[in-house]
Formats: sequence, structure tokens, C-alpha cells
Amino acid sequence: MDFEKLFAEQLDTLRNEGNYRVFAHLERHCGGFPKAKNHGDGAKRDVTVWCSNDYLGMGQHQDVLNAMHETLDKCGAGAGGTRNISGTNHYHVKLEEELADLHGKDAALIFTSGYVSNWASLSTLGARLPNAVIVSDALNHASMIEGMRHAKCPKAIWKHNDPEDLDRVLSDLPANATKIVAFESVYSMDGDIAPIREIVEVAEKHGAMTYLDEVHAVGLYGPRGAGIAEQEGLMDRITLIEGTLGKAYGVMGGYITGSRNLIDFVRSFASGFIFTTAIPPAVAAGATASIKHLKQSDSERMLQRERVAQLRAKLDAAGIPHLPNPSHIVPVMVKDPVKCKQISDILMQDFGIYVQPINYPTVPKGTERLRFTPTPLHTEADIDYLVAALGTLWSQCALARAVA
Amino acid sequence: MDFEKLFAEQLDTLRNEGNYRVFAHLERHCGGFPKAKNHGDGAKRDVTVWCSNDYLGMGQHQDVLNAMHETLDKCGAGAGGTRNISGTNHYHVKLEEELADLHGKDAALIFTSGYVSNWASLSTLGARLPNAVIVSDALNHASMIEGMRHAKCPKAIWKHNDPEDLDRVLSDLPANATKIVAFESVYSMDGDIAPIREIVEVAEKHGAMTYLDEVHAVGLYGPRGAGIAEQEGLMDRITLIEGTLGKAYGVMGGYITGSRNLIDFVRSFASGFIFTTAIPPAVAAGATASIKHLKQSDSERMLQRERVAQLRAKLDAAGIPHLPNPSHIVPVMVKDPVKCKQISDILMQDFGIYVQPINYPTVPKGTERLRFTPTPLHTEADIDYLVAALGTLWSQCALARAVA
Repeated sequence: MDFEKLFAEQLDTLRNEGNYRVFAHLERHCGGFPKAKNHGDGAKRDVTVWCSNDYLGMGQHQDVLNAMHETLDKCGAGAGGTRNISGTNHYHVKLEEELADLHGKDAALIFTSGYVSNWASLSTLGARLPNAVIVSDALNHASMIEGMRHAKCPKAIWKHNDPEDLDRVLSDLPANATKIVAFESVYSMDGDIAPIREIVEVAEKHGAMTYLDEVHAVGLYGPRGAGIAEQEGLMDRITLIEGTLGKAYGVMGGYITGSRNLIDFVRSFASGFIFTTAIPPAVAAGATASIKHLKQSDSERMLQRERVAQLRAKLDAAGIPHLPNPSHIVPVMVKDPVKCKQISDILMQDFGIYVQPINYPTVPKGTERLRFTPTPLHTEADIDYLVAALGTLWSQCALARAVA
Repeated sequence: MDFEKLFAEQLDTLRNEGNYRVFAHLERHCGGFPKAKNHGDGAKRDVTVWCSNDYLGMGQHQDVLNAMHETLDKCGAGAGGTRNISGTNHYHVKLEEELADLHGKDAALIFTSGYVSNWASLSTLGARLPNAVIVSDALNHASMIEGMRHAKCPKAIWKHNDPEDLDRVLSDLPANATKIVAFESVYSMDGDIAPIREIVEVAEKHGAMTYLDEVHAVGLYGPRGAGIAEQEGLMDRITLIEGTLGKAYGVMGGYITGSRNLIDFVRSFASGFIFTTAIPPAVAAGATASIKHLKQSDSERMLQRERVAQLRAKLDAAGIPHLPNPSHIVPVMVKDPVKCKQISDILMQDFGIYVQPINYPTVPKGTERLRFTPTPLHTEADIDYLVAALGTLWSQCALARAVA
């Protein structure tokens, strides 16, 4: 069997479709975010990163770094085992307490990533609850979709962010179904936000549990940074809130929070939690420091909002079309995969601006885009420089301007 | 729907079966491994950890800590994104080069954990290769089993470590099947080692690719610590070698190595790789330092072997029954779930010795055990103290002695 040929064929197909991914090879500069050294072939200069999910620059916050340095010296590099076999460190326990407090829940459970937290939790709930049906928003993240597939329980899809359709879908389920309504707060590619209150009310009416992914919201919304559900005063009506430590909190790892029994249930039965090495104590300590900071400090969130508003206003003034939404994500629509990649390449090479092109299958064909995420660490000068560069390219590439 | 009741019922079942897990709440002391502070309820003193997978104590090695401190200051805490969207850092690229070199392969790919590396790689190969059949050793790890389930391709199981049975199973497959033979080198619970040469020869005869999990072997076996396949001079005959950075290398993360096309294939198609935040640059740098050290230093491996031999000899002298095997894992057989937990509890409370009881479903019923992993950092006095404690308990609990 010629395995090399099998691999090469499918890779060629990907290349021919324009969907082959080339990773930007960077070296972020702590203290200089969002600047990074570009190690790519033929790179001539540093770049400004415009597509990071370290949304507030907490990855270089001194509290986070101090906590990590201290814990590294105190406890060493790795956890040394799974949570059950010698791998539960004091810093994991403290992080779980911090997360439970953040979301006003009894308990929390850390995973190695947000992906694993969704995959392991949804698959465990769907597989082990009697008569479970997972009722999923049509645009849920890959990690939730894989969790549902793995659960092997029946699924039902409701129209994206449409509580009326959710109501219809739930009404059609058998009376004895154990209903799990799974959705996100901030959707990462369009930056739109779910009508959580309406969704929760529909779920409550049908006796369904709610599973809310807040990975693109935690740290960023709500008075203590607990997310959109906190901002809307709805945390106590959500059964399970899932989040990440790798985006606004600037470190890595994922988690769920909920009632003591719910958390204990996932802890006790989820293969993807049980059979994996715990995250390093220093990572847990860094994440804890980041959460604590963003619980009491609003300045990063405020400055980020200012920068987001400034970028949108300047894009508008330059006639660069972007998708309106109420979040911190600014999708600039190119609507052509080849031009999208081309613009990204020219921005990197000629302007020292790094923004990854987002093409199919991450977004539907014809909606190719550049996804900008302004942070409090981008300056007004960075924004001016970016918008000027985009303006130049919009003319060169003969792309449509937005009508003012 | 009373979700709390549903969760509580299944947790009660687990408790009644004696399979409810209570995590030991520890704080490892960097510089003092294998000692740890015990934060458990009613704990009175420090403990000596006897069940860590930080097999060589690399989690406190100065090279590892220095690399992590430096990279933390240089690049900050987190990677800031998925590998495709701003998350590929120079330290990831360097680690992948180091891993490819370690195993004598073209390329490598890092994952957030060994679990994810197995799950994502096996499921991608099984799902995307035409007519794929995964041919699995009967005792493969949970992460491989979940990857196979997820692949949704046909599977076939061969008897544990039995190349003749593998030959029969492969002979029964259709001629056009794309055969993937998946197995481990060191099996973690019994500590037995696969007859890799015989397995590879059978696989080659049938034109199958080989997928070898070396997570309990990397760092520990072979002149440069690349594992059992290196020790046996067989690395170039294995299609894919999978390993971890979270056990002997003392940090966290998983990886695969193989041909350029194979690695590019998994990189391009594996959902569990694509849609997840990259590991922190400091974690990558720490793992790289650990691999580099163990490539040229044999002293940790030699001292570990000495400690393993000493523990076995002293257990024999005391008549404490343990499973013979050629690896660094010393399973002391209790063969009773209640006594196994009880001994573990008494060792912790009265002797300051921590070893997690291993019960069903991790091992078959009737084979309950304490799994000891001596490191180069355990002293001869630690071994004497442990064996004396076990001797006392063996008498108190009326457990069978081994016949000398």
C-alpha cells in the first residue's frame, strides 16, 4: 500500500482548492505585544499581529508572568500525572475554586484545552444521560460538533441564534427526552452574540438543561469578566458554562462550571478528562492570576472597546466593508478566497501587518474575510497604519468599497 | 427534568461499586521531588510520591526550568491562538524539529496532550484514508480507542502483544483494505513491552502502516531516549511514532512524528489539532530542553534502572508480590479493590507514602494493584522505608506473600 501517495493526493486536493494552510512562523515579544518577530521565509521585519485571541494582552501581564515564574520555581514544570494519579496540584484546586466563583457556580473542572472541555463534556452528557438529545445551534464550534458526534445520542439542530426555531425543535422532541441545549455566546467568525435570555427562557419552558460556550467572551464581558451571561445577569439560569484560559486570559486550558453533581459527573466519566496529564501548575497559577486581575480591573476591557470602535470608524471612513456586530471581533469582508489570501500575504510582506485569511471551510464560500481583533495594546497609530494599508490594497485589488 | 438527580444517581452507583475517584491534593516541591506537600483533609505531613509519571524528575531539571523562565519573559504566557491563526511560535517550530530529529523522521506535530495526539491522529487516518481498517492491540490506551471509535472505520482487534494473532487478523482483511496497525511499546499498567520487531515484520508482510504509541517509553529507553523502537533499532520501520512531553520529559503536550506527507496530512485534516490553541511557547521550550538533555545524558536512565532493580529486589526479599516485567513500572498486586484503596489510604495517612490505588475499570477486576514508579530521585532510604511500610501492612491486612 503506497501510503505516501494517499497522503499526497489529499494534500494536493487541498492545495488545488486554495484551502492548504501555511502557518505564520512568529515569535511574540513579551512586553511588546502585539509586535512579533517574523521567522517566515524571506521575512524582512517585525510584524504587528492583528488576529490574536490574546484579546487583552494578558499573556504579557506582569501578574500572570509573576505567578508563572513563582509556581515554576515552587512546583516544577509539569504536573507529573493525570488528575487521579498524582497530577492534582494545589494550583489546580485553587484555579477551579476561582472559576467556580467567577461564574457563581458550585464547582469547576479544568481541561487541557477548550476544545477538549467541549468535546469531553458534551460527549459524556450526551452518552450517559438517559434518553439524551443534544439540541445544537447551527453554527456551534467544531469541538462541540465532535462532542455531539462522539456522544452517539440523537441530535437536533436549531437555526443560528433563533429562539423561536429552538422552541419548535424542542416541541418536536419526545416527552421523555433529556434535552441539552448547546450554544455559544459570542460566535468567533461573525462576532455576533446569542440572545441568551430568550434561549434560556425557551429551554426552561421545555425543561432542558443549557450548555453555554463563552470562550470568546470570558475576560471580556460582564463586570467581573465572566462573559455575556454575567453581563445579562443570567449566569444562575445556565446549567453549564464552558470557557477557556487561552484567549482573553492569555494562557491555555479550558474549563466547565456548574453544580457540584454536574461537575463531579463529568469529572468521573469523561475519558478525555480522566486519561490525560493535568496542565502544569504554573499554567494554572498564571490563569488564576489573570482571572483575579480581570475580575477587579475594567481598564483593559474599556480600552479594548475604544480601539474596536476606532477601528470600525476608520474602516467606515475609508469605505472598507466590515461585518457589523456588537462584539470585539471586526471581520473585514473580502468575499473571494484568492484575494483574501493575497491581501493577507501583501499585508505581511510589504506592510508588516499580520492577519490570517479566513477561508472555507472555517467560513462559508463567498464570505472569505480578514478577522481583526483589536486589543488595548494596539495604538491609534497602529490603527491608522492598518486602515491606510487596507485602503491602498482595496484600490490595487479592485475590491468593492462599502457605500458610506 | 431533574438533572441533579440524574447526575447523583450515576455518582452513587460509582461509589457503591468502589470506583469513585478521590484526587490526592498535593503540592510538588521543585528541588525536592519526589516529596510533596499534602493538602488533603486532615493531612499531617509531607508525602513521598511513588506513582508519578515524571519518571526521571525532569520536571525540576534546571535546564527545563531555565528554558521556561527565559521563554516566558521573551514571549509571554500563552501562544495567543490556534497554530493557524497567529499561534505558531518559533518555539513550537523548534520543538517539532527536535522531535523529528529524535525519532529520525522528516517531521513532527505537537498536540495539547498525548491523549489528543492519539485521538486526533488515529481518527483522522481512519476516517480519511480510503478503505481504512484500524487493527488494534487488545490493550491499547483509552485515547487510541476513542480515536478509533471516532474514525468510524472498521476495526479489528488482535490479542495483546501477539504477532501471530496479528498475522491472522491481517490475513482475514480484504485485499484492498488500507491497514493501520496500532499498538504501544510499554503498556502502562502491567509494564510489559511489545515485541516490536515481530509486529513490524507482520505489518510489512501485509503492507500495513504501523502506529506506535511510545508515551511510557520516550525519554527512558534507547541511547538518545527515543524509546523502545530506538533501542531495538526499528524506528525507520515504524510509519508513525507517537509520544508525550508530559511523562519522562516532565512538561506537557503530545506529538506524532513521521514522513513529511503523513505529518502534513494530520496537520491539515485533524479537527482536534486545527481548532485548538497552541501550547504556550514556554512549555514548548521546556520540553525542547528536556529532550535535548536526555538525548545526551544517560545518567538519569541508569540511576532509574538501579532504583527499579533495588525496589524489585527488596520487595522480593520482603515477600511482597509484584508483576515481573522488563520496564520501569513496578505493579504490586493486591487483587482486591477494597484492600487496595485501604492500603493506599494507610500509606498516605500513617506513613507519608503516596501511591494511587489502581482499580477497575483501569485494570480488570481481581488484578487491583499499587503501581510504583521509582525515579532517580528516590533514595535507597526511600525504598527501604516503603518496603518496610508495605511489609507491615501486608501482615495487618492479611495479604498473601509471594513465595520466595
